[in-house]
Amino acid sequence: MNEASVRHFIGEAAVATAPDHDRGLAYGDGLFETMRSHRGDVPWWNRHWRRLQRGAQVLGIALPDEDRVRGEAEGLLDGADGVLKLILTRGAGGRGYAPPQQARPHWVLSAHPLPPASPIEGLSLRWCETRLALQPALAGIKHCNRLEQVLARAEWQDPDTHEGLVRSMEGDVVSATAANLFILHDDHWTTPVIDRCGVAGVCREWAMAALDARQARLAVTDVEAAQAVFLCNAARGILPVARLGVRSWRPHPQVAQLQRRLAAEHPAFATEVA
Amino acid sequence: MNEASVRHFIGEAAVATAPDHDRGLAYGDGLFETMRSHRGDVPWWNRHWRRLQRGAQVLGIALPDEDRVRGEAEGLLDGADGVLKLILTRGAGGRGYAPPQQARPHWVLSAHPLPPASPIEGLSLRWCETRLALQPALAGIKHCNRLEQVLARAEWQDPDTHEGLVRSMEGDVVSATAANLFILHDDHWTTPVIDRCGVAGVCREWAMAALDARQARLAVTDVEAAQAVFLCNAARGILPVARLGVRSWRPHPQVAQLQRRLAAEHPAFATEVA
Repeated sequence: MNEASVRHFIGEAAVATAPDHDRGLAYGDGLFETMRSHRGDVPWWNRHWRRLQRGAQVLGIALPDEDRVRGEAEGLLDGADGVLKLILTRGAGGRGYAPPQQARPHWVLSAHPLPPASPIEGLSLRWCETRLALQPALAGIKHCNRLEQVLARAEWQDPDTHEGLVRSMEGDVVSATAANLFILHDDHWTTPVIDRCGVAGVCREWAMAALDARQARLAVTDVEAAQAVFLCNAARGILPVARLGVRSWRPHPQVAQLQRRLAAEHPAFATEVA
Repeated sequence: MNEASVRHFIGEAAVATAPDHDRGLAYGDGLFETMRSHRGDVPWWNRHWRRLQRGAQVLGIALPDEDRVRGEAEGLLDGADGVLKLILTRGAGGRGYAPPQQARPHWVLSAHPLPPASPIEGLSLRWCETRLALQPALAGIKHCNRLEQVLARAEWQDPDTHEGLVRSMEGDVVSATAANLFILHDDHWTTPVIDRCGVAGVCREWAMAALDARQARLAVTDVEAAQAVFLCNAARGILPVARLGVRSWRPHPQVAQLQRRLAAEHPAFATEVA
C-alpha cells in the first residue's frame, strides 16, 4: 500500500479521475471519513457509515451503495493495516450554488500508511488562536469545509507540538484540530458538546459509551484544571495528553485502562498499548 | 465555448486532470474567482486578481504567475463572451490538515455560457433560513468553503424566485447567496459591511465607489424600508430588485443610471441596459 493508492467512482461506475466541475472541488460540497484498517478490514465501518449517512442527509447528497463502497475499500486495502479515507461529494454540477437535482455522487477511496506511533510519554498540546465559527446546521458532521482546521493546524510547525486545542468563537473549548477531547474531573469524564461547531468523532462516540462520559461546554480553565486529559480519533485511537503549554499531566491509570479496552474491542489498536 | 471547457494546471505545468490528494477536494482548501468575459477579454481582471491575492495571503497559498494565468484564460476564452471561472487550490498534500510547505498550487480554468438575462421588471427575492456563521478570519475572501451558500440556495426551487437574502448568525443582513446587496435610504446607498462573514464582491467594490456608498450592519427592517434595492456580482452586473416576499419596488432611476454607468465602463454589460 503506497500513498498513491486512489480510486475514483461516479455513482456505481469506476472512473479514472475526478469529474470536471466537481462540487467537492468547487465548494467543499462533500463529506469524508477517515478509518483505521486492520488486516484489510475496517472494524468501525458501521460507525463511519452511519455518520456519513447523517451528513448526506444534512447536505442532501446521494449515497452510493454501501456494499459496493465497502467491497471496493477492501479491494483497495488488500489485507493491509493502515488508514482508509473516503471522500463523498455531491458530484458534478454547473456553475452556481444550486445543487443539481440529479447529481450522481463522486466518491474517492484512498489508502494511507499507518499514522506515526504516539509518543510514549503522551502528547504535547498548544492552544490555537484560530476560533471555530458557530454553525449549528453543519456541526457534528464530517463535511469538507475545513479551512478553519487548516488555519488552526498552520499555526505551528514545531514537531514537538503534536496537536492544538481549538475554541469556538465564544471561547468554549471544542476539540483538537483533528481529534476529540476528554477531560477527567472528580472521577467523571467530560467531552465538549458538539452542537454548534466541531466534529462528532467515531472514537469519541465509542469512548463516551465506554466511560459513561457526559457532554458539556468546557472553559479553558476546566481543561487546565483536569486530573487527566486525552484526545481520540478513529485513525489513532486513545491519545494520552502529557502537556498543554506549561501544564503537565502524569500518565493516568484510567486512560491506560481505556486504551486496553479499545485494544480488546478494536484489534488495530492492540499494538499501541504500553 | 461549451460547458466542458476546462483546463487544469499544477504550478506552471498544464496537466490532464486534478491531482490526487488535492486539498481543494479534501478540505475546500482554495479560492475562486468568477469573471465576466467580453470578446475574449476580462475587463475586471485586475480587481479579481487583487482579491485572489488577498485570499492567497490569508490562506498561505502560493499564487501562479499572473501573466501565465491570464494568457491561458484568454486562450481558453478564444474571443468569446461568457463567464470565466478560476479555482486555485493549495495543491496536493498528504492526509491531515497541516498545509504542506512546498505545495505547488493547482489551478483550474473553465469557460461557461453567459448567464441568463435578468427579468426586465427586476428580481424576486426571498429570505433564506440558513444563517452565515461569524468567522472574521475568512470574511471577505472568496474561498472554497461554501456549504452555507449551498444550503441557502437549496432552500427553494421555484424558478420565479431569483435569489435569496442571507443573514448572519446574529441576524444582520449580509448578502444574497451569490451577489452583494445595496439599499437606498434618504438618498444614500448602503451595503452590508463584510467583516465577519460574506464575500467582498468585485462588482460591490465598483458600485461602492460609483455611488459613494457606505458600509454598515443592516437589519431586515432596513432592507424592507429601503426606497430601492439592487444586487450585484461580477458575472451579472447590477441587478434591480422588484420584490422581496410581499414587499415590492418600482424601477428606480438611480439604479438605471448605475446600470448605464457600468455599461459605459465595462462593455460586457452594455447589452443588458434597458
